[in-house]
Amino acid sequence: MITADVIYTLQSPDVTYSSGSKESIAKKVLPPDLADSESLVFVSKPDQLEKALKASSPIIVAHKALTLPTDSKSTFFITHSVQLAMATILPLFDGKMNRFNQETKIHPQAFIHPTAHLGQNVSVGPFAVIGEHARIGDGATIGAQVTVEAYAQVGALTILHPQVFIGAYCEIGAHCEFHPHTTIGADGFSFAATKDGTHKKIPQIGKVVIEDYVELGANCAIDRAALTETRVGRGTKMDNFCHIAHNVVIGQNNVMAAGFKVAGSSKIGSNCMFGGDAAVSDHITICDKVIIAGRSGITSDITQPGAYGGYPIEPLRDSLKTLANLSQLTRIRKELARVVKHLGLNEE
Amino acid sequence: MITADVIYTLQSPDVTYSSGSKESIAKKVLPPDLADSESLVFVSKPDQLEKALKASSPIIVAHKALTLPTDSKSTFFITHSVQLAMATILPLFDGKMNRFNQETKIHPQAFIHPTAHLGQNVSVGPFAVIGEHARIGDGATIGAQVTVEAYAQVGALTILHPQVFIGAYCEIGAHCEFHPHTTIGADGFSFAATKDGTHKKIPQIGKVVIEDYVELGANCAIDRAALTETRVGRGTKMDNFCHIAHNVVIGQNNVMAAGFKVAGSSKIGSNCMFGGDAAVSDHITICDKVIIAGRSGITSDITQPGAYGGYPIEPLRDSLKTLANLSQLTRIRKELARVVKHLGLNEE
Amino acid sequence: MITADVIYTLQSPDVTYSSGSKESIAKKVLPPDLADSESLVFVSKPDQLEKALKASSPIIVAHKALTLPTDSKSTFFITHSVQLAMATILPLFDGKMNRFNQETKIHPQAFIHPTAHLGQNVSVGPFAVIGEHARIGDGATIGAQVTVEAYAQVGALTILHPQVFIGAYCEIGAHCEFHPHTTIGADGFSFAATKDGTHKKIPQIGKVVIEDYVELGANCAIDRAALTETRVGRGTKMDNFCHIAHNVVIGQNNVMAAGFKVAGSSKIGSNCMFGGDAAVSDHITICDKVIIAGRSGITSDITQPGAYGGYPIEPLRDSLKTLANLSQLTRIRKELARVVKHLGLNEE
Repeated sequence: MITADVIYTLQSPDVTYSSGSKESIAKKVLPPDLADSESLVFVSKPDQLEKALKASSPIIVAHKALTLPTDSKSTFFITHSVQLAMATILPLFDGKMNRFNQETKIHPQAFIHPTAHLGQNVSVGPFAVIGEHARIGDGATIGAQVTVEAYAQVGALTILHPQVFIGAYCEIGAHCEFHPHTTIGADGFSFAATKDGTHKKIPQIGKVVIEDYVELGANCAIDRAALTETRVGRGTKMDNFCHIAHNVVIGQNNVMAAGFKVAGSSKIGSNCMFGGDAAVSDHITICDKVIIAGRSGITSDITQPGAYGGYPIEPLRDSLKTLANLSQLTRIRKELARVVKHLGLNEE
Repeated sequence: MITADVIYTLQSPDVTYSSGSKESIAKKVLPPDLADSESLVFVSKPDQLEKALKASSPIIVAHKALTLPTDSKSTFFITHSVQLAMATILPLFDGKMNRFNQETKIHPQAFIHPTAHLGQNVSVGPFAVIGEHARIGDGATIGAQVTVEAYAQVGALTILHPQVFIGAYCEIGAHCEFHPHTTIGADGFSFAATKDGTHKKIPQIGKVVIEDYVELGANCAIDRAALTETRVGRGTKMDNFCHIAHNVVIGQNNVMAAGFKVAGSSKIGSNCMFGGDAAVSDHITICDKVIIAGRSGITSDITQPGAYGGYPIEPLRDSLKTLANLSQLTRIRKELARVVKHLGLNEE
Repeated sequence: MITADVIYTLQSPDVTYSSGSKESIAKKVLPPDLADSESLVFVSKPDQLEKALKASSPIIVAHKALTLPTDSKSTFFITHSVQLAMATILPLFDGKMNRFNQETKIHPQAFIHPTAHLGQNVSVGPFAVIGEHARIGDGATIGAQVTVEAYAQVGALTILHPQVFIGAYCEIGAHCEFHPHTTIGADGFSFAATKDGTHKKIPQIGKVVIEDYVELGANCAIDRAALTETRVGRGTKMDNFCHIAHNVVIGQNNVMAAGFKVAGSSKIGSNCMFGGDAAVSDHITICDKVIIAGRSGITSDITQPGAYGGYPIEPLRDSLKTLANLSQLTRIRKELARVVKHLGLNEE
């Protein structure tokens, strides 16, 4: 429950007070379709605004392109980006950190090795394991049943949700958030073939380094390097089920949708976006500012910023044509047969 | 070990007694190829029946279309559906619940918050965590190392296998079964782009609601909604590695094979089937009674019941032709070049 | 930190001493690009050798095809396979087992059922669960928060990293290594359709058998059989996110890259390789010595050894042509239209 005044007080460049009482109270946040008389509502289209007004929603955050009524009892804020307005206001309604409430910051049923170093105000949940010489930064939150192995590091204010695994020697930055069942620092997949057909394991003695402000979804896996490091750059965000193989280096501020996979030793620049289930082969280099459509398969370097798609990869516009023409393939085959017959040519 | 009489006593509409002694004893269940003189065998084809007879299997459950011998010492049951007969009889041989045996229903090494509410006859395994104000229904089984976060609810008789995660505020119905490493209620993937290229997290303050009789395989992930709820309808079944993004609404009695993915805010009807690795884009609507082939990519609404496949999606029959013609593509290209040359046209 | 003498003492057929002091000391291992005066370096190309020499790396392991200098202070070993040399030497630098160090082999906060049987020198981490009548072989390592359910078996010297799940009755061989969040023995996906549209679960009363020397990556899932067993043969290696459905039988020494999936009851031979995201339909048989390109979809039996790719599958050479021609599809469609028009044929 918040008052309009709390939003006003944020003085965010992304949310500007427009009109109405600063005493208005919103008990929850609802989408326009479900707006009611107790809800804050974000609106970007005229019909959404209409729904919120009809429901007498107490606080309405509207895109600046909308025309606001002058006779409404609602309190209005305007924004140049509804997404940014949500990122600004929703933390006021987010009870996430309450999940980690416990009577003592360090749960008595956690196991913390005596040589581990915990910063100020660290929270450790029940049945979590912090290994020898591991270091946990100030204000970090280690969920229930998490393992942070020996010599691993977790930065300040980072949140590890329950059941996350951080392998030995791996380094996690500050302000990161990893969701359950994500695995950092399993061995890279590397075997040497022998003459008798068996495969001999090549030990993976490197680590994983994850920079600040990285978010990883649930059930992701980032493998440790063979010798040096697998790296994920500052501010990169990954959805569930992403797979990052050993020695991969990923730059900053990338966004990877669910099921993204990249094979060993590839390098990805910064400010890229990858659609769901897109995959990158091994030893590939992708430059900055590349946008990749879902399901694309990247098997050669990308050296020019831009949008791409398909498998094999093409400029996005071409790949969409290829996709569209796929369903013409049966017709094409038949028509070609007709032409060949018409010309009296032999089938080859 | 059961007697034929135990099956008889079930009085199931799917399994009818035909002939033979009700004292016959089966110690195990084997497929026809491995049938022996101690096994119950399900048979749907004449050669399978022959194998079971040759092995002198004590109990044979046969499809009604088969002609049964009159001179056999085996006990026969008949069924209109071998699958339904298996669903009816195999529970008699299933020791699954024995896995959760322990001296006390609540393992002394579990952590249960004092404000959590546990129904009658609830089982909680070692190192499980039940958060504050969480509610566990009568007869539910919470496996080892499970986390049920604050304010989450788990319905009566539901089974959470070890290492499952149920996030705060999520609601799980009755008679559900979730396999290990499945994540319910990780954050939806949602970020607002800023001018400096960084991405600001949009808090996900919604929840996940899973209705009764839902089964989820191992290593699945169902994200919580941005504001309201992600929902999976009654009786829907998912195989391993399924990904359900935020705000998705899935109807009843659907079946999703392994690796099924659906992106944010899509709506799926009831009584649909999805093959392995099929994927649905965001904000898509799919009506009831749709069958989707494996690997299909659904990027537009489906409004008519029926079978579909491919990427982009086509009616199944057409998509199979497209697939078949794909391997003709090289020949088509060459033949077209030959025609162009024959006609004296220039390549363009 | 090792001396060259330690490598010499291995007397490995894959690493032969060539020249230089056996007292040379390497503190670490680095790739040629990062070589320094304290590092052992593996080199397979002339420019890599040059880098290592320039950096005065104390120990250089070179492919036998390279010409070694006679005036260097480095110590040289030669090898017929740099990969095998890495598999031989890197264990000397691998601190993996240190992760599992603890004051007592059995951590006091583990739960081990009184009827479980642990061999000699078994290590069990904090919050691990070993169920009733489970058997753990000599020298096995059971990581933190692992569950080994009732009657399951784990072979000698096998390593289960933290948070692995081994289901009841499953049998894991010796010398195996499974990475975090891998699930062995979840139920196969099997339901009987009823007339009212609901799905009745067919209990999965079989098990999983994994033979010796199998390695599984993080977040894999291998389902238990319906009646008998799902089997993975000796020496097979799988990367992260592999899915093996019920009743599947996989032979020996196979290599599966990340995201490999195989549906129910299929049989895969030995000495095969599968690229990333390759998938096999149900009830398929694949013979020995088959190589499958990444992303391939196998929907029919493969009876001849060789390399294949595509969806549908073709011999690899053909599938590469099909892929290449895909991006010609738009041009093909246009050119064919031009031909049809030129000939005065009607579009059909």
